[in-house]
Amino acid sequence: MTVIDVYKLPTSAPDDTSRLEELMDSGEIKAEDIICILGKTEGNGCVNDFSRGLATLAYKQVLADRLDVPQEKVAKEVALIMSGGTEGVMSPHITVFTRREGDGSTGSDEKRLAAGTGFTRKFKPEEIGRMPQVRATAETVREAMDEAGIEDPDDVHFVQIKCPLLTSDRIEDAHSRGKDVAVKSTYKSMGYSRGASALGVGLATGEFSEDELSDEMILNDDSVYSEVASTSAGVELERSEIILLGNSSDAASDLVISHAVMDDALDADAVRTAIRDAGVDPDAETVRDEVVNILAKAQASSDGQIRGRRHVILNDSDIEPTRHIRAVVNAVAGSVVGDPMVYVSGGAEHQGPDGGGPVAAIAEADQ
Amino acid sequence: MTVIDVYKLPTSAPDDTSRLEELMDSGEIKAEDIICILGKTEGNGCVNDFSRGLATLAYKQVLADRLDVPQEKVAKEVALIMSGGTEGVMSPHITVFTRREGDGSTGSDEKRLAAGTGFTRKFKPEEIGRMPQVRATAETVREAMDEAGIEDPDDVHFVQIKCPLLTSDRIEDAHSRGKDVAVKSTYKSMGYSRGASALGVGLATGEFSEDELSDEMILNDDSVYSEVASTSAGVELERSEIILLGNSSDAASDLVISHAVMDDALDADAVRTAIRDAGVDPDAETVRDEVVNILAKAQASSDGQIRGRRHVILNDSDIEPTRHIRAVVNAVAGSVVGDPMVYVSGGAEHQGPDGGGPVAAIAEADQ
Amino acid sequence: MTVIDVYKLPTSAPDDTSRLEELMDSGEIKAEDIICILGKTEGNGCVNDFSRGLATLAYKQVLADRLDVPQEKVAKEVALIMSGGTEGVMSPHITVFTRREGDGSTGSDEKRLAAGTGFTRKFKPEEIGRMPQVRATAETVREAMDEAGIEDPDDVHFVQIKCPLLTSDRIEDAHSRGKDVAVKSTYKSMGYSRGASALGVGLATGEFSEDELSDEMILNDDSVYSEVASTSAGVELERSEIILLGNSSDAASDLVISHAVMDDALDADAVRTAIRDAGVDPDAETVRDEVVNILAKAQASSDGQIRGRRHVILNDSDIEPTRHIRAVVNAVAGSVVGDPMVYVSGGAEHQGPDGGGPVAAIAEADQ
Amino acid sequence: MTVIDVYKLPTSAPDDTSRLEELMDSGEIKAEDIICILGKTEGNGCVNDFSRGLATLAYKQVLADRLDVPQEKVAKEVALIMSGGTEGVMSPHITVFTRREGDGSTGSDEKRLAAGTGFTRKFKPEEIGRMPQVRATAETVREAMDEAGIEDPDDVHFVQIKCPLLTSDRIEDAHSRGKDVAVKSTYKSMGYSRGASALGVGLATGEFSEDELSDEMILNDDSVYSEVASTSAGVELERSEIILLGNSSDAASDLVISHAVMDDALDADAVRTAIRDAGVDPDAETVRDEVVNILAKAQASSDGQIRGRRHVILNDSDIEPTRHIRAVVNAVAGSVVGDPMVYVSGGAEHQGPDGGGPVAAIAEADQ
Repeated sequence: MTVIDVYKLPTSAPDDTSRLEELMDSGEIKAEDIICILGKTEGNGCVNDFSRGLATLAYKQVLADRLDVPQEKVAKEVALIMSGGTEGVMSPHITVFTRREGDGSTGSDEKRLAAGTGFTRKFKPEEIGRMPQVRATAETVREAMDEAGIEDPDDVHFVQIKCPLLTSDRIEDAHSRGKDVAVKSTYKSMGYSRGASALGVGLATGEFSEDELSDEMILNDDSVYSEVASTSAGVELERSEIILLGNSSDAASDLVISHAVMDDALDADAVRTAIRDAGVDPDAETVRDEVVNILAKAQASSDGQIRGRRHVILNDSDIEPTRHIRAVVNAVAGSVVGDPMVYVSGGAEHQGPDGGGPVAAIAEADQ
Repeated sequence: MTVIDVYKLPTSAPDDTSRLEELMDSGEIKAEDIICILGKTEGNGCVNDFSRGLATLAYKQVLADRLDVPQEKVAKEVALIMSGGTEGVMSPHITVFTRREGDGSTGSDEKRLAAGTGFTRKFKPEEIGRMPQVRATAETVREAMDEAGIEDPDDVHFVQIKCPLLTSDRIEDAHSRGKDVAVKSTYKSMGYSRGASALGVGLATGEFSEDELSDEMILNDDSVYSEVASTSAGVELERSEIILLGNSSDAASDLVISHAVMDDALDADAVRTAIRDAGVDPDAETVRDEVVNILAKAQASSDGQIRGRRHVILNDSDIEPTRHIRAVVNAVAGSVVGDPMVYVSGGAEHQGPDGGGPVAAIAEADQ
Repeated sequence: MTVIDVYKLPTSAPDDTSRLEELMDSGEIKAEDIICILGKTEGNGCVNDFSRGLATLAYKQVLADRLDVPQEKVAKEVALIMSGGTEGVMSPHITVFTRREGDGSTGSDEKRLAAGTGFTRKFKPEEIGRMPQVRATAETVREAMDEAGIEDPDDVHFVQIKCPLLTSDRIEDAHSRGKDVAVKSTYKSMGYSRGASALGVGLATGEFSEDELSDEMILNDDSVYSEVASTSAGVELERSEIILLGNSSDAASDLVISHAVMDDALDADAVRTAIRDAGVDPDAETVRDEVVNILAKAQASSDGQIRGRRHVILNDSDIEPTRHIRAVVNAVAGSVVGDPMVYVSGGAEHQGPDGGGPVAAIAEADQ
Repeated sequence: MTVIDVYKLPTSAPDDTSRLEELMDSGEIKAEDIICILGKTEGNGCVNDFSRGLATLAYKQVLADRLDVPQEKVAKEVALIMSGGTEGVMSPHITVFTRREGDGSTGSDEKRLAAGTGFTRKFKPEEIGRMPQVRATAETVREAMDEAGIEDPDDVHFVQIKCPLLTSDRIEDAHSRGKDVAVKSTYKSMGYSRGASALGVGLATGEFSEDELSDEMILNDDSVYSEVASTSAGVELERSEIILLGNSSDAASDLVISHAVMDDALDADAVRTAIRDAGVDPDAETVRDEVVNILAKAQASSDGQIRGRRHVILNDSDIEPTRHIRAVVNAVAGSVVGDPMVYVSGGAEHQGPDGGGPVAAIAEADQ
């Protein structure tokens, strides 16, 4: 049976690969088992965040060296997903996912942590932020479910996607072929691509049907969303990279995963629910030890209100909205689990309700 | 008997005085009863925060108009304390404190909310951040205790002080008289003045003795601190303005106050303790209605660590440390009380332990 | 004959009115002669810049006191135009314009500095950023020309306008009456209002005809622009305030004004041309003494290029574009005139070519 | 005879090595000739600027591949000096320095561009920011002069140094051996290291004598400075890397270098002087073609004044001082040379007078 292991490793800088290298040196992690490295890096998480690129280059180099393959091969086979922005007390770290064949069962009927990774085809510029991206993403998500051994969509709890965005060159390419694009702003295309990717997740999990979707509703109708999608856009890729996490009876991992939906950025109860549903008492002293990581999305509510009160996030010309809200959601989740080293990523288009977002907990299973 | 009332009023801008004016129009608040307006304004909370000055000028003008006195008289008699910085989801607001004579007792033996205000003498530049400021502050705090009818220092729960800082002109003045100053940097003098003020509070409440204090230990020995001091520095004054809050058996208010100490920025339990000690169940659905306001101090830990994890606050050259940590403490307190409109102020020198700070809850008393 | 005097006064803070008060105390400036105070205040110049409001409130109060009239009357009769943002070495200051009747002629045929002020009618939300705003602005500009005694549009050299923007309330008001608005984003409405105002100026001066204008081309066709418009939007007004500067043979001022167009942010030659056309040798040592002030607009080029080189302004998520470019244009103009205290304002929609903008010089006339 | 060639190459991102790779593909640049890559990268130029590390890693990788050596060997032999911060319109780029043996003389008596590189020994933490660092730097600078074939210190025009800083680990190491360090703040240690390095340059060039230097005067006495030093600190190294540029009669380059000192950030005349002294008419239309690059240092004046006017740089809590002033100096130099792609680096301790700094011009020699 398949075993998924998850390691949360602190980093002292975006290119600090030392903890991972120690675990590979000691044999605890085998380089060839690594299917995904999901990082929180300490840049601004916005357009000019170079901490992501630095981390990606550093880990690509380490894995290429260990596996003795070219860096391009690593990039093709391992999902290196770096999310920038560690505002407030969010502690920079990587979460390493490995997959190996286990030597038996867990001695339990309980479904255990399973994971599937996948890569979509390359997208044409004119497809980004539109239905073709939605459909292709849904297809790859379904394949990742298969790979993970998950049949019931209810067993899917977190789908992290790194998706492409539009650049000036790509827009020009579309125009030269007589095609238009969803949006001309490079920055805004990040939101369109995140939104289309999230809708692809929800389409695959059956959270809504294709009838409800169209080019026009993307980024316009926020009532349609996935509860398990977490997407981020990056300039360095033309296709999307996906890691899907859920529970499967084919898995023999020591871990389980669950999720809930935060209604707003202060929704500590949703964090507790996700933890409880993963089998851990959120009020126990040991919660920090039993929870491997919390994975959450954050977005400032678009009406400038939270719990009937005005927030100033959207009017602040000195600090970008995602920076404010990541600090908040990390503090809320961190205060519940007793650990500021939890993963919170910004920009939650079609990922949970306006102002809120999905939150997942990966925890140790009862033995 | 004396009655202290407290009103938490949302503001739509620093100079939005409309809610207060409505309550004065309706007679609910009498202008002559106002002893303090404590504001959270939406600037950066640092050196070049003009939201504070704008709010101060706007409220001074409104009160001068209503009382038909010159603005200078308002400034002398009402403590107008504006604290900048509403990062994350902190909602801008003012807390208005009024004092009036009540027409009887509460019908209860319980001590109730009492308040005293005071103004120190003007400080010479060479006194700021040093023992003379500590001693003069302690003296005024003791007088405010008397005014509030508080005998037992344990009944003091929050002492908010607005204190002066050094400017180039003031430093020059000292030098011209052959005196040196505690620190030559205008910015750093804010910390020295806050620290000396906080030590003045602790000296008055007996949290430590004068033996433990000296010019040298100010800002150097963070093991000595007050649990009830909350101080902020402003360029516009030469003396300190003080409002002291506690409980007294001479008071007939409908409110009580309590406090606790946050060990670090994620210490939600301390917030719960403060609320519980004020007689309110922090886990009840009604907590938001019963708590009038939470008042907390925030400061990033100086070793760059929280709960054994690295934070990046001190290395961020784009966002000042106090901005990061206010977002965090507001989120933690706001998630407990269910309201993002709680007061959190940054810069906690000698106010609680390193990385933590005092937190007070003003709540409705059992009737 | 009419005499316009211009005073450039340094300020030590947005609400530092001391230099102006000194000049009023000494009789050099009479309060009743002041027609406009044009300020550069030290906020971020973006949405949450409270230095503008603080300056406006402070000057309104001073003038109301001196003139012994209500503040509302001052606001109606004196153009108080505060522009935020003093990045780089731009030195905060106010430029005070006064008008008085002189006791004779200049003994010269040369046209001299003339000024007219005006206020448009209040705009409905649905008019902002559209042709009705353009036309109403043009009408008021024409009236200001009359008032200034300027017949030939070529004698108009700088038209500063402070115009309204859309707020949530105003948008809702339009919607409730079945009207739509030019743009739903409060922030973007600033650009629309600035652009429509600038087109109103150019329409009045005949720089282009109404045929070239339409709702659709506003903010879309940057080939149509005024060379003498300088517009900024503020939340505090519903109509537009205008000060028009030019030269007139009816004026007996000791000053003249001229202008040029900067092709891009580094166009020092345009600054020199404006100075030279005002009768001053830009390379003389005395240039700083003879030039009273330089007034310029700045905007980052929308294609991310300047002189064939890439700039990163549009990709910087930590510093707003207008903040970058004000620092640049101030440095260029300041290095020519030898004084960092020159007025540069950001956001130049339809004010000069993309990436450039108008620059005017007010200088002492040859006696 | 030795020939130094200099290539200024635009970059589209910190890790954009494409232009350099093209020139290596075409044979115009030989990888083995490269002695230094001096980059301006588009991060914040402060503590958490990861664009520098990303560029360093990318270029190290490219050169290691081309030379077929380990990356460590590249790091040891080629000076990879990345300076962050491209505010205003500063255009990101690299300047590549190559050295090769030429096949004859220039047919001119004129001294031509020469360059020497060098690496100091590793510094102990307790040496940083103190006289041992000064002396060791001076020694390496003298060796670089020898290597460059420069005898007369007046022929040295620009010495770029990348120097180490103190980290928590290094400070702890010193303490564990009973040693103290110059300053405990990691951030401030950057200034100390830059200052000591600059004093090392001036000591080597004889701009002042060792008598004038001491541990105490470093960062305290700004009257002692080098006119040709340009230093920056980076966390990634323990020794200093040096590239020295000057003119030598042993060189057969097509280029020459000269320098001047900017008295303040607006000193366009100093830029013109440097260009003129390199044999190019700064007012000619062809100046941009004939000047290969301008290299300048920038620092906000510590008294908050420039040309008798107040600047707000030191009071801005949203934008770091070096970010403001780089925009200014780049704009001034760029407006002179007609190209925003000029190198300006911040933090000029002991590098030119307070508020000013050295500026060098590398230009084509008359043939």
